[in-house]
Amino acid sequence: MYKLVLIRHGESTWNLENRFTGWTDVDLTPTGVEQAKQAGRLLKAEGYDFDVAYTSVLKRAIWTLWHTLDQMDRTWLPVVHSWRLNERHYGALQGLNKADMAKQYGDEQVLIWRRSYDTPPPALDANDPRGQRQDVRYAKLKPEDIPLTECLKDTVERVMPFWNDSIAPALKAGKRIVIAAHGNSIRALVKYLDNISDNEIVGVNIPNGIPLVYELDANLKPIKHYYLGDAEAAAKAAAAVANQGKA
Amino acid sequence: MYKLVLIRHGESTWNLENRFTGWTDVDLTPTGVEQAKQAGRLLKAEGYDFDVAYTSVLKRAIWTLWHTLDQMDRTWLPVVHSWRLNERHYGALQGLNKADMAKQYGDEQVLIWRRSYDTPPPALDANDPRGQRQDVRYAKLKPEDIPLTECLKDTVERVMPFWNDSIAPALKAGKRIVIAAHGNSIRALVKYLDNISDNEIVGVNIPNGIPLVYELDANLKPIKHYYLGDAEAAAKAAAAVANQGKA
Repeated sequence: MYKLVLIRHGESTWNLENRFTGWTDVDLTPTGVEQAKQAGRLLKAEGYDFDVAYTSVLKRAIWTLWHTLDQMDRTWLPVVHSWRLNERHYGALQGLNKADMAKQYGDEQVLIWRRSYDTPPPALDANDPRGQRQDVRYAKLKPEDIPLTECLKDTVERVMPFWNDSIAPALKAGKRIVIAAHGNSIRALVKYLDNISDNEIVGVNIPNGIPLVYELDANLKPIKHYYLGDAEAAAKAAAAVANQGKA
Repeated sequence: MYKLVLIRHGESTWNLENRFTGWTDVDLTPTGVEQAKQAGRLLKAEGYDFDVAYTSVLKRAIWTLWHTLDQMDRTWLPVVHSWRLNERHYGALQGLNKADMAKQYGDEQVLIWRRSYDTPPPALDANDPRGQRQDVRYAKLKPEDIPLTECLKDTVERVMPFWNDSIAPALKAGKRIVIAAHGNSIRALVKYLDNISDNEIVGVNIPNGIPLVYELDANLKPIKHYYLGDAEAAAKAAAAVANQGKA
């Protein structure tokens, strides 16, 4: 049996401002730093340990990982970064306020942009300064691999090769793994692991900074999953995520 | 021509308390964090960029690297950790106050322990709780590779395989490299690079948190080296390091 721990980054400055973030590289807030440290304290108290950590190339996830590892005295662990673990790209919505958009376009439209499985938000223009085609961290990617917008289906499609090529083989090799990532890259993994339908994934929300543990069998099929710590607090935090897009 | 940047970690809690640290895993002070950030701001302002970062498995160097990279917007760079970049092991002196030791044993004895090329301090007992043989980060090493004390000669001998096997080939492959490490692992590299004699290395001190740039030719022989930023401040900081072991 294998264990895998997923952590959505702590609160970011744009979570706090209720803005669509996507691939924009924003910092953690002081609350987000504290959430990350608390995740590390909790993991340590519960006896968790890791051999390797995975994260995205976005600093809100990276700092979450660093603070978590520091609380566990594991700053020295190998860390693998992949753009494939990045947040879902939010297209032309990146930078805009979720509640403002709900006032302008209606709660329903925003819910579609936020949670529809296969309808992406409007695309960024390729030359929009909010885009990532000039960003050196993506310089080795083919331009067409750098999204201008994504629905969750797109995110699943670019997360899964990394799961199959890197994370799954490491798990099967007996590595104890933590992944610090984003609401939608974690939803992509959760959808795959628990075989959640395209309709049902709409209702799945991942709270910030609470370790989500998957126990997996020899074929990496989930036996069960649970949030560490206060279950009620985790449920409340997930519900708050669901409500962010309302006017 | 290649460029290599070396950074000794920012001020640690035991630098502040003037204690022999060695392989003890102590935190940065708030001053140390600020030094690390300043190193990053300076590197960014001077147009430096990196492809890969190297550091030890000790958190004062790791956090120095993290804060440096963050200021450069490079948190996502690959980081290679190696115990071979650790500080010199200070043996039975680890944890003791440098000035107290100078009062007890005399300035000269402490200078020998601190700076003699080939006389190590008294060894730790293999079961001393200040030792590292039970520390999980060294679990894959042969016990005889985990030192109980080291002179600088010993440090050179365990740093050089990592230089030869990992750093030098990466430099020759065109990678732009930063190494965040420790006073004595950096002195080991400097001694090798500049071919400094066993006697002369005694007088070489590395200040905390100031980027030290080496320009290297095609054979990785130094053309020149310099500290970034205020040269006078760097010289003063190096002199302060030299004076730490006086009663």
